[in-house]
Amino acid sequence: MAAPMRICRRYLIQCLHCRKNLNFISSSRYFSTDQEQDSASTGTSFSYRTHLCGELTRSHVGQTVRLSGWLQYHRLSGAFIVLRDWQGLIQLLIPQHKVEETQNFPLESVLEVTGDVQLRPPGQENESMSTGDVEVAVKDIKVLNPCKTNLPFEVRTFNKVKENLRIKHRYLELRLPHLQHALRLRSQFVMALRNFLAHENEFVEVETPTLFRRTPGGAREFIVPTHSPGKFYSLPQSPQQFKQLLMVGGVDRYFQIARCYRDEGSKPDRQPEFTQVDLEMSFVSQEDVVLLVERLLERSWPGEKGEVKGPFPHMTYHQAMTKYGCDKPDLRLPWQVVEVTDLVRDSCPPVFQPYLETPGASIQALRVKDGVKHLSNKQLDALKQSVFEKVGDSVKLVPVKVRSDETWGSGVGQQLGDSVRSAIQDRLDVAAGDLLVFAAGQGFLPHTGLGLVRLQSADMLEAKGFTVREDGFHFLWVDTFPLFLPKEDGSPGLESAHHPFTAPHPEDVGLVYTAPEQVRSQHYDLVLNGSEIGGGSIRVHDSHLQRYILQTVLQENCSELEHLLEALDSGCPPHGGIALGLDRLMAIMLGTDSIRDVIAFPKVSEGHDPLSRAPAAVAEKDLDYYNIHLVNLPEDGGSGV
Amino acid sequence: MAAPMRICRRYLIQCLHCRKNLNFISSSRYFSTDQEQDSASTGTSFSYRTHLCGELTRSHVGQTVRLSGWLQYHRLSGAFIVLRDWQGLIQLLIPQHKVEETQNFPLESVLEVTGDVQLRPPGQENESMSTGDVEVAVKDIKVLNPCKTNLPFEVRTFNKVKENLRIKHRYLELRLPHLQHALRLRSQFVMALRNFLAHENEFVEVETPTLFRRTPGGAREFIVPTHSPGKFYSLPQSPQQFKQLLMVGGVDRYFQIARCYRDEGSKPDRQPEFTQVDLEMSFVSQEDVVLLVERLLERSWPGEKGEVKGPFPHMTYHQAMTKYGCDKPDLRLPWQVVEVTDLVRDSCPPVFQPYLETPGASIQALRVKDGVKHLSNKQLDALKQSVFEKVGDSVKLVPVKVRSDETWGSGVGQQLGDSVRSAIQDRLDVAAGDLLVFAAGQGFLPHTGLGLVRLQSADMLEAKGFTVREDGFHFLWVDTFPLFLPKEDGSPGLESAHHPFTAPHPEDVGLVYTAPEQVRSQHYDLVLNGSEIGGGSIRVHDSHLQRYILQTVLQENCSELEHLLEALDSGCPPHGGIALGLDRLMAIMLGTDSIRDVIAFPKVSEGHDPLSRAPAAVAEKDLDYYNIHLVNLPEDGGSGV
Repeated sequence: MAAPMRICRRYLIQCLHCRKNLNFISSSRYFSTDQEQDSASTGTSFSYRTHLCGELTRSHVGQTVRLSGWLQYHRLSGAFIVLRDWQGLIQLLIPQHKVEETQNFPLESVLEVTGDVQLRPPGQENESMSTGDVEVAVKDIKVLNPCKTNLPFEVRTFNKVKENLRIKHRYLELRLPHLQHALRLRSQFVMALRNFLAHENEFVEVETPTLFRRTPGGAREFIVPTHSPGKFYSLPQSPQQFKQLLMVGGVDRYFQIARCYRDEGSKPDRQPEFTQVDLEMSFVSQEDVVLLVERLLERSWPGEKGEVKGPFPHMTYHQAMTKYGCDKPDLRLPWQVVEVTDLVRDSCPPVFQPYLETPGASIQALRVKDGVKHLSNKQLDALKQSVFEKVGDSVKLVPVKVRSDETWGSGVGQQLGDSVRSAIQDRLDVAAGDLLVFAAGQGFLPHTGLGLVRLQSADMLEAKGFTVREDGFHFLWVDTFPLFLPKEDGSPGLESAHHPFTAPHPEDVGLVYTAPEQVRSQHYDLVLNGSEIGGGSIRVHDSHLQRYILQTVLQENCSELEHLLEALDSGCPPHGGIALGLDRLMAIMLGTDSIRDVIAFPKVSEGHDPLSRAPAAVAEKDLDYYNIHLVNLPEDGGSGV
Repeated sequence: MAAPMRICRRYLIQCLHCRKNLNFISSSRYFSTDQEQDSASTGTSFSYRTHLCGELTRSHVGQTVRLSGWLQYHRLSGAFIVLRDWQGLIQLLIPQHKVEETQNFPLESVLEVTGDVQLRPPGQENESMSTGDVEVAVKDIKVLNPCKTNLPFEVRTFNKVKENLRIKHRYLELRLPHLQHALRLRSQFVMALRNFLAHENEFVEVETPTLFRRTPGGAREFIVPTHSPGKFYSLPQSPQQFKQLLMVGGVDRYFQIARCYRDEGSKPDRQPEFTQVDLEMSFVSQEDVVLLVERLLERSWPGEKGEVKGPFPHMTYHQAMTKYGCDKPDLRLPWQVVEVTDLVRDSCPPVFQPYLETPGASIQALRVKDGVKHLSNKQLDALKQSVFEKVGDSVKLVPVKVRSDETWGSGVGQQLGDSVRSAIQDRLDVAAGDLLVFAAGQGFLPHTGLGLVRLQSADMLEAKGFTVREDGFHFLWVDTFPLFLPKEDGSPGLESAHHPFTAPHPEDVGLVYTAPEQVRSQHYDLVLNGSEIGGGSIRVHDSHLQRYILQTVLQENCSELEHLLEALDSGCPPHGGIALGLDRLMAIMLGTDSIRDVIAFPKVSEGHDPLSRAPAAVAEKDLDYYNIHLVNLPEDGGSGV
């Protein structure tokens, strides 16, 4: 047995990005936090390779091994070659008579090597390398495929190059440890999800069609022309209709790692295709789905990322908006929005007065700890500007610097008077050096403004190196949303807050017919560190209620959904489910900035693929076959095939 | 412990189609052939249900249970209701005071029931029902959702109705045991595949894009318009390019249960989207991939379908054509094509003479056992007609009836003379009552004709109730295909026999440049019971060879594949893989006629979905957004939204 310190060095490769160590564990050890390798590697089964590069240790000394990998670098005038595969590095000792030949092998060439594992001479061990005690004395070495010498960027050092260039040569970037780690952990995590659902809980994985018919409402769906003139498929934004139809069909527990499509044009960090962990169950309540998802994540979370433990905290939409000014609170940040209307009202500063005159108006406050100490005036201006961009002039935002002598750097301090000021400081636990931000306005508008200040000022402080958010994964359920909202485009009428198949809260079913704007829904969102990573609901299973909601409340044309309405009428069980956004969840789990870091072949802005240069022009005869013609072509005729 | 006979009745539901018993086993028992249920059901976790309907037995007597399911039928004037879920049926004893209410519940309504499990009175047990010893004495019963009374077809009895009607109401048809069984077994089988690949052999499951760029050559690919005028994605026919790029990227073992797309218009029993078990490995030979696939199938095959055991037999393309007249021989049928040119030549009947004058011509023969006894003259004519449709008049086909006195019912018998006739009968082991079919022509044309006779006459005999084929799953590898074939459309030049990324046989690399039509490939097909269920190859990893094949041999424009050629030049390991057609494999495993029986929501002919009525018209403003206009619209303007 190796000593503990040695165990910790096993399997570690440093991320070239962040210099953190990355764990590459075999699938059979996925749930283990112990980094020691299994005795029998399975990564070389069905191959002439006997071992992976990174797994050789003192225990292999004396063995003849056959390895393959990429030439990482030459050492000491060609006396050594360092060979790399996904799992690690190994030093090859080149026999003198071969150096002349091998020293000209280009970097990143693919080699096949046979040799004997031996201890490095005393003093030549490399503690920073997992295989640093040993080397392979080469007997045979050959280039399986040489690499050209003018690669667009170096794989070994990963000099920061533009994203478009990296994704254009994604096959090179994928060799970097952080991407290898992301793809492998994603695969293992999804396998663990499947194991819990299919193997332990009798869920049936069903593949549902992606060539389908448009679902009314919702995001823009890509269309696919067919040979029938004027007839198109749509690529669905989720398997929502199919999973409900499966429930009607008696497949009482369904899941799918489902490819979904949304044509969102140029939104940053959105992909035109993305992946959902999609599931649905019959004969369940909201509590059942919530409990299942908690168990699912507890059981599937990778050991190396620490433990996830339910039950997760719950919050109603109303609570989330009231306390955090946001429906997906980042609970890593303890700061809350606090109402001070009662304290301020009697000596209300004139600047707030007009904002309090309408019903439902209030003054809210937020303490930004050490905000005065660490934020510049320019940053305070930026905060005000972004609140203005979000809520306009319907909110009066007043940041107040609490000076070292606890006086306030704003006229409102004097206007409020000493006792009110001190009551406010007590209520918000304000100390010298804090920034105190007031917001006055109607409904949740002041909360929304302060919610933005809360997140942005935390980002600003963290960018300066201060720790503001707690570590770890902070899951949260948000529920009891409104079922309908006023239309976002301002036109009269209501639209679904989530989607038209969401069931009303059981106590509010009557209100659907009398006061739909007051109806609460059975929708629930799963939030992780301030990102919505999942959403689900109990669905409408009553065809009359569903038809009323579609036709009368939402004023939708039902003809495109007759098949679903008929299904609800044909023995549909009560059911509900959820969809988790796998790309976003993986990105948060791995702590990456962008979901592009957890997708093998992502697209960049506006859905462009720099690698294949998709989308591209198609031949005239193909357009003819599909009975379409192009219009609005740019000058070059779009012929850039 | 229950007695063996009782064990056998557990979990059995009869298929309404074929009257065979269907096994519904829990996932944790997938590999077991023992049909006894696990003690703890996991099919009701995270739900208010305490049990599934089909799992109640004597061991539950005295327990209070809560069930949900569909109302299968009423018995004895409402005294009983039989309740159904996917797993089975249970009899509910309705208390007298509730009969008046419950007897009007419509069939297929969804019920929730609480009651006590009790033994049926002696003599009232039902041996044909897995829960036939017990019943549930109802305490509470309610309708969760009533079913309408005019369903388009009965779920209980499944009167044969037209496929379009069944698929239009697929949510009803899915309740039938054979479809439940197919979807659940498919899910379990795929889970087992994943387990072997990801968990036991370190394969990485990677999701590759489906919005991509056209691959030159191959099947017609659906196109997807984008907001950029004239720019389209293509839906790929396989992840071929991506999996090769992953190998270049050092993801040395990849797999994916991949959705693939092919616009094949109206071909019967083809789906516009289908599923492949797609995998690729670096540093492997053909033998490695073959061995892996054999182990994969051995380990994943469901216990209830018997054992699969490698190594599977191998055959070259040349052997398959020579012996079976077909590159995907059905080895359930022992009959082989036998050459008789040597026997016939000296006394060649005039009818064959002109067909033997060209080089490479031959006379082949096939014995159809008992063909004279059981096939009508009309059927013999049908055989001749279909051979004519396949190979035209370039083959002379002569069926000969071998009479009960072993004389031949054809002039060729006399022309050949007694000794030749007897030599032929000896070589083909012909007996009285057999049909002997001769075919003369060039190359593999006579084999192809007899290959067709072989399969069709077997089908005819089996349709009459004779057993011709052996039982079981007969796997076969076919390899050593030609790398290139003359163009199928008859124009000059060569095309890839499979795809342009297939590597030549190592011994034939030189011939690529000198005599490409003679090059053998490293492609291999996996055949099961006469269907090609998989195909793969070792790929070209040398960029110069790949460019030569594309540009010079195939005369393709390389510009659409520059990214792949550059990748091969950037340190690409030798690699190979395979793709298995999951839909076809499941259909053969389950013995169904059509792949539509193993797909939850299949499309019917010409890609039409009777359920949602996709494909459908799209709104003018959506076409404008995508910068396309319709042409060739039919009279009704295609506005049938």
